[in-house]
Amino acid sequence: MYPQPAIKRPKTGREVKTEFLEFFPGIHRIEYKPDTPFSSENGLFYRYYNASERIHGRTMEDWLRPAIFLGKAFTPNLYSCIKPWNDNSQTLDNYKKGIRAMFELCIKLGVKYWAGYDGDLVPESENFDENQNNLEIIINFVQEYQQKTGIKPLWFGADLKNNSRYVNGAFTNSEASIVTYAGYQVKQALQIANKLGSECFMLSPFQENYGSLLNTDLTKEIKHFAKFIKTIYDQKEKIGYNGQMLMQTVPDEGETTGITQYCRDFFSCTSFLKQFNLDKYFKMNVKPGHEFHMAKLYGLLGSVDVKEKDLLDIKSGIYLLRTVVENGGMAPGGLTFYLPSHNAPFDPKDLIEGYISAIDNYAKSLRIAVKLVNDAQLNKSIQMRYLSFSSGWGARIDNSDISLDDCEEQIKKQEIHSFPQPISSHYEHCLMVVTRYTDTTLKNIFEIEKRD
Amino acid sequence: MYPQPAIKRPKTGREVKTEFLEFFPGIHRIEYKPDTPFSSENGLFYRYYNASERIHGRTMEDWLRPAIFLGKAFTPNLYSCIKPWNDNSQTLDNYKKGIRAMFELCIKLGVKYWAGYDGDLVPESENFDENQNNLEIIINFVQEYQQKTGIKPLWFGADLKNNSRYVNGAFTNSEASIVTYAGYQVKQALQIANKLGSECFMLSPFQENYGSLLNTDLTKEIKHFAKFIKTIYDQKEKIGYNGQMLMQTVPDEGETTGITQYCRDFFSCTSFLKQFNLDKYFKMNVKPGHEFHMAKLYGLLGSVDVKEKDLLDIKSGIYLLRTVVENGGMAPGGLTFYLPSHNAPFDPKDLIEGYISAIDNYAKSLRIAVKLVNDAQLNKSIQMRYLSFSSGWGARIDNSDISLDDCEEQIKKQEIHSFPQPISSHYEHCLMVVTRYTDTTLKNIFEIEKRD
Amino acid sequence: MYPQPAIKRPKTGREVKTEFLEFFPGIHRIEYKPDTPFSSENGLFYRYYNASERIHGRTMEDWLRPAIFLGKAFTPNLYSCIKPWNDNSQTLDNYKKGIRAMFELCIKLGVKYWAGYDGDLVPESENFDENQNNLEIIINFVQEYQQKTGIKPLWFGADLKNNSRYVNGAFTNSEASIVTYAGYQVKQALQIANKLGSECFMLSPFQENYGSLLNTDLTKEIKHFAKFIKTIYDQKEKIGYNGQMLMQTVPDEGETTGITQYCRDFFSCTSFLKQFNLDKYFKMNVKPGHEFHMAKLYGLLGSVDVKEKDLLDIKSGIYLLRTVVENGGMAPGGLTFYLPSHNAPFDPKDLIEGYISAIDNYAKSLRIAVKLVNDAQLNKSIQMRYLSFSSGWGARIDNSDISLDDCEEQIKKQEIHSFPQPISSHYEHCLMVVTRYTDTTLKNIFEIEKRD
Amino acid sequence: MYPQPAIKRPKTGREVKTEFLEFFPGIHRIEYKPDTPFSSENGLFYRYYNASERIHGRTMEDWLRPAIFLGKAFTPNLYSCIKPWNDNSQTLDNYKKGIRAMFELCIKLGVKYWAGYDGDLVPESENFDENQNNLEIIINFVQEYQQKTGIKPLWFGADLKNNSRYVNGAFTNSEASIVTYAGYQVKQALQIANKLGSECFMLSPFQENYGSLLNTDLTKEIKHFAKFIKTIYDQKEKIGYNGQMLMQTVPDEGETTGITQYCRDFFSCTSFLKQFNLDKYFKMNVKPGHEFHMAKLYGLLGSVDVKEKDLLDIKSGIYLLRTVVENGGMAPGGLTFYLPSHNAPFDPKDLIEGYISAIDNYAKSLRIAVKLVNDAQLNKSIQMRYLSFSSGWGARIDNSDISLDDCEEQIKKQEIHSFPQPISSHYEHCLMVVTRYTDTTLKNIFEIEKRD
Repeated sequence: MYPQPAIKRPKTGREVKTEFLEFFPGIHRIEYKPDTPFSSENGLFYRYYNASERIHGRTMEDWLRPAIFLGKAFTPNLYSCIKPWNDNSQTLDNYKKGIRAMFELCIKLGVKYWAGYDGDLVPESENFDENQNNLEIIINFVQEYQQKTGIKPLWFGADLKNNSRYVNGAFTNSEASIVTYAGYQVKQALQIANKLGSECFMLSPFQENYGSLLNTDLTKEIKHFAKFIKTIYDQKEKIGYNGQMLMQTVPDEGETTGITQYCRDFFSCTSFLKQFNLDKYFKMNVKPGHEFHMAKLYGLLGSVDVKEKDLLDIKSGIYLLRTVVENGGMAPGGLTFYLPSHNAPFDPKDLIEGYISAIDNYAKSLRIAVKLVNDAQLNKSIQMRYLSFSSGWGARIDNSDISLDDCEEQIKKQEIHSFPQPISSHYEHCLMVVTRYTDTTLKNIFEIEKRD
Repeated sequence: MYPQPAIKRPKTGREVKTEFLEFFPGIHRIEYKPDTPFSSENGLFYRYYNASERIHGRTMEDWLRPAIFLGKAFTPNLYSCIKPWNDNSQTLDNYKKGIRAMFELCIKLGVKYWAGYDGDLVPESENFDENQNNLEIIINFVQEYQQKTGIKPLWFGADLKNNSRYVNGAFTNSEASIVTYAGYQVKQALQIANKLGSECFMLSPFQENYGSLLNTDLTKEIKHFAKFIKTIYDQKEKIGYNGQMLMQTVPDEGETTGITQYCRDFFSCTSFLKQFNLDKYFKMNVKPGHEFHMAKLYGLLGSVDVKEKDLLDIKSGIYLLRTVVENGGMAPGGLTFYLPSHNAPFDPKDLIEGYISAIDNYAKSLRIAVKLVNDAQLNKSIQMRYLSFSSGWGARIDNSDISLDDCEEQIKKQEIHSFPQPISSHYEHCLMVVTRYTDTTLKNIFEIEKRD
Repeated sequence: MYPQPAIKRPKTGREVKTEFLEFFPGIHRIEYKPDTPFSSENGLFYRYYNASERIHGRTMEDWLRPAIFLGKAFTPNLYSCIKPWNDNSQTLDNYKKGIRAMFELCIKLGVKYWAGYDGDLVPESENFDENQNNLEIIINFVQEYQQKTGIKPLWFGADLKNNSRYVNGAFTNSEASIVTYAGYQVKQALQIANKLGSECFMLSPFQENYGSLLNTDLTKEIKHFAKFIKTIYDQKEKIGYNGQMLMQTVPDEGETTGITQYCRDFFSCTSFLKQFNLDKYFKMNVKPGHEFHMAKLYGLLGSVDVKEKDLLDIKSGIYLLRTVVENGGMAPGGLTFYLPSHNAPFDPKDLIEGYISAIDNYAKSLRIAVKLVNDAQLNKSIQMRYLSFSSGWGARIDNSDISLDDCEEQIKKQEIHSFPQPISSHYEHCLMVVTRYTDTTLKNIFEIEKRD
Repeated sequence: MYPQPAIKRPKTGREVKTEFLEFFPGIHRIEYKPDTPFSSENGLFYRYYNASERIHGRTMEDWLRPAIFLGKAFTPNLYSCIKPWNDNSQTLDNYKKGIRAMFELCIKLGVKYWAGYDGDLVPESENFDENQNNLEIIINFVQEYQQKTGIKPLWFGADLKNNSRYVNGAFTNSEASIVTYAGYQVKQALQIANKLGSECFMLSPFQENYGSLLNTDLTKEIKHFAKFIKTIYDQKEKIGYNGQMLMQTVPDEGETTGITQYCRDFFSCTSFLKQFNLDKYFKMNVKPGHEFHMAKLYGLLGSVDVKEKDLLDIKSGIYLLRTVVENGGMAPGGLTFYLPSHNAPFDPKDLIEGYISAIDNYAKSLRIAVKLVNDAQLNKSIQMRYLSFSSGWGARIDNSDISLDDCEEQIKKQEIHSFPQPISSHYEHCLMVVTRYTDTTLKNIFEIEKRD
């Protein structure tokens, strides 16, 4: 599908340098130990994720392309009291500590990508020039750590959400000055993405919405948005940044908020992009589930956000990775994991255990998904289901021009006219297949290891 | 927008012929009596709906184009024990009674359109030829009543939902014989729509969905669906039927059912239609709300379903009709009212009161919507909100090609660099305007009448 | 129901003292002007709320008992850039400005109550003693303004939500030190409520929840919570505070958060209180809707939160106030209005318009609710619906001991055994009655005024 | 907890008698084969459910007490076209076939209980006496099969839902005749439950709700309901039936239906029962999740419905069975499985595979739950979390009377006053423990088997 970028693996081996024992002390590289008995005292290993193991023609790392999200755990915020990398101050030093902690976590997890927004990198300052200056300092700091570790962004984007200036929209704001500033912020973010070698650039239309039809000029707002999407793409070309452009969906939280999103899901985004002929510039960043599969079908599969209940959901993982495998991978996108999944205080060890569980869930899912893809019996059973389209009149439906008159002719040529009968979709059987593969896959892993 | 079809009004006057006093005895034509004091004993009049009154350059009837849905109240079903037009038998005669009752209700309400599916017209029979025969008898029966009353369908469609053969899909079924039968059923429905002079033809993809990704070939199913949409359009052209083709959206009922809809909302339908270049053949039939306004924006406004909580919601009505007025009407579509909104036994009088309330709600909404459209102050306030785009740099955003570098230049040319400031969207003010217009409009109506 | 506390009205008259023209300049007392034509330029009057007007034996003010919530609009927070009472600093002075602005708004709206939490009064400080000191200064400041204006709290409570120490529970925390501090905080809040003459004391169990069954001792947490509820009540008695104790419900936000509330709605609270025999100490603070009516039925009606879509919902208002009228009022509780209903920047004028709209909505609702209560026809129609219980066997069901054998006897004594027939509930009629009263009530108001 | 009723196991062995090879031909008893390699061709075995295996002091069968629900799959209904036990006719013979098929399924699955309503046993007839007669014939037929197989009802109840007479309520209906008939129907159902030796009797308040506050006398309806609950209990005592009385919860489907349930969840039921002092007569039948655990805490744990997404959810199963194990079982209640989970046509093999998957999911859950209960490390970690309550002041909170003044004293006696610090709840760790146990448990099973 996409040419797979070559990723330099950091030196293997269990221990990490002293420099990276600052925030998760006593924890070295997480290793793949499928056979270790589990006790609730020690879970600091992968049971399924073996980054360099080839499976279905590619390494597990190439299939998953996992990334750690910067904003949730490493940016100084309210619920930070027991994180060693956060003294609650809005200072450059405190932000730097968070960034160092993130790189330390990446190294220990064996993850090659981080992901985040400009707004997660520097303290909020009301002084424009100070803010610019801070950003420059931090970007150099990040770049230095990237060179030291070989880790880089899966995606980078402009945070057009968390500052109150955007609450009534970034590119759909009613104030030209705010729209202009959003444009400038994205310009800078593109430069940063380019400088840091980010695989993708993320456009997140979190605040592209309206509160009331009464005071909103929908046509104007959408036109502005479309114009800026094109302008952003042009800028990317101009500066020679060759990352993939992504657009994220923003779920509408029901009608209770009184706020309506323009880009609430894969379909509203796609309709919008197609309407303005912008769908060739962007791919979609979605969540696991129906929209992900439709994105593949429409050729717009970009990248995936894994958060909340999806983090540990084996079914989400299996369905997702079956589609990824059938798609031949999803590079330059990947799986961005958002942890922690709550807003309560957490220990560094909790965080690393959360990441291990989530990555292991998707590694297990990958192993099962590959079994499903390769299961001749299952594939045959799907073919059987649509067998009536493989020859005769059914094949004509599939492949030729037909008319409704042809349909009538087919029905009327029966000697005794009758209604067609429905058949079972074998739904329960399919669910059983997934469950049984989950169980059996585990078993096989254990057995294989025993033999070695 | 559309050329407005001429509708012959039935003779005015309060009394209806004896023939139409069968199912709602003692009830004659519902009149517009804005000034009648209300008692809970007598509500059989319109307070706002005055069909022939011209408002904003068109009659109220032309703006609303109300239609009565056949299926919910008039097709024999379970909760029917106290409807005089239903003896619970699955006979042609019982279906005919329901149809007569519907025409009687239309006459009394002064409504020119009915709407429904083929499946609502005849009893389910397992004998193919008997079923065909019954359909022919009933269509002639309906046609006779249409000629007698001047009432005709706003839309007609094939019921591809309620028979168990379609439970795993009509055009997305895995069985060619079922897909074929669906094609034949739509062919017949198109002929009926043509014969009955239906303004529109409705395609309702209720069962176009899947239960499990594991046993479903999404690509094949969607391809079949797209092919049949085109084939249906071709058939319409072939038989010379010139009604508008509509596509209805089918809300996904969450993940609890284990069933995922292909066409869950306006955006998924639109994405699908655009993907296969089918969007020029269909307009969308949606519900009031955000999707309705987007349909207008995308030029795909077809018709509206008014059901459940929308029936009596004044805010839904005002926002909807403001857009309809700005759109210059929505013919050949209109407002289809679905009553009753529950599955409990109802008296004929309950049903007619339900329809009066719903139509009156949308008539009241129309009167208020027109005020909003004409309110110079409100329009000025919207213009003021976007004032920054009307000259200088803002106008360039609106009208010319700009680049992100231009944005930067704008910001950097300030003598002291600063962040833009957000402004209030005056959300509370807008809501107050709607509320106050609701109250004042009523008052004005009463005052005008007093003067006469 | 409750003895109605005497409230001193501030001097009437349109103008307010210069002292109270600081934050809403140019705006004086909002007057009742039912007859003023509306233009979207000027909405600063009540059309329905006439505080001193007697209706159904009591003033409108006595029925509604409206209160302004301090926290949402007057406590310094993020979205504050254009509020004149907020310079974004976490200083005592900035908090004092917010409090002054709240009193100014109360005076202008003619509202006698405010409501809020200790946490909304002072800046967050990590220095314990400074925090104590600040609180004392602010309470004296509030008390001074209360004396000057005659305004006092409808309810006061301890904010056991917004500090990160409570994120895993206040009284259900796993740390004794946090439980203890919560106890101390409530002790202080009770003293403040007493000092400020608060009508009620609010217990808001926002954080009484758990994240995972695996690490939670439900039995212990619930036992602690019950013990503290009793302890809080004892403290109230000990200090001689005679306000009503209220408990607020905390909606569970679905399973997506991974957090489960112990007190998610009226019923979970009530079950809990009854389980520990605590229901005699507390009444419930709920939202409009089903739970409100059940609270009345169970004799636990305390007070009401009006927020978000309920603010302008006429149906919510009518149903609520009909129950309030039937209950003979709800003092010492009342209606707490939470505005603004969004997190976007707002002008002071937006805020006052939002409050006018919301109070007017409930005043209009009161006028309609009284009509419904007095409608002999409607009351008769309800009696008719249950007529079968007023004599004979039906009356025995209502009033005497019966057995299932008696039921059998009733059925078997029919000469021809038959099934009972359902009847219509006249649902559509009831909805029409409400709608029509809404319209007619307005009309009557206008007519009455015309005659005067 | 409860004395465990002795259940006679039918003879073991693989083959079943010819009589029971009618509807699932070629399928004999489903055996426990944990070690069989899975292919999607053959899944007709249990991998985890070994009915007679003792685990944590009791057989798996005793822990789970699985039951098959009659209504969903075996009562003739619309989506029945390919079930060999249903010719679509509303005849006694067709109902008998469904019942025979259910017993055949029970035998093959090794399940000792069925569950269902009177309404699922006989065709709907409008002739009262014929209906009575049919019911008698069928009950004798069921009894005969029960004796032949040793299978009996886990619970039996009156279907007060599916007949249109109950649409506005059974015991909360406004018509005395309908309330009376409901009473008679329950009387008969109690007799049947007694005759068939049902472990429990189910009261399902599906239709105990209201559509509009305007036409409803809530007080009267609730009073009637409470009276009948007591009357039903009295009848049970009178006839000497000693099954457990259960009450089922009825989820409210949101406000869209316009219908509000009186008994929408565990808490509304419990509040109601406690209000009328009826909680000593009933236990609750709930779904897996929070309400289940609260039911245990409140001592009202009755029985569990397993349907839809819970059928194959391992997390639902683990949390549920951990509580069941801690509770010492839940007899005389058990797990009622509702299959299929959709309304599409299904093959008999699909149905049996669905049941195997669901029972196996709960058997797997049981094995994992027992591990969790016995994990000293996990138990210690929970104890550690609440350690601060085990001595000193914390123990006083736990065990003695304390006052808020005591809390203040504790805080003030610190030399330097400070705020308490929150601690991590180790949420991620807990989730990892569950996941890892799921994986490891499987491994252990396989290893154990290998050794044998």
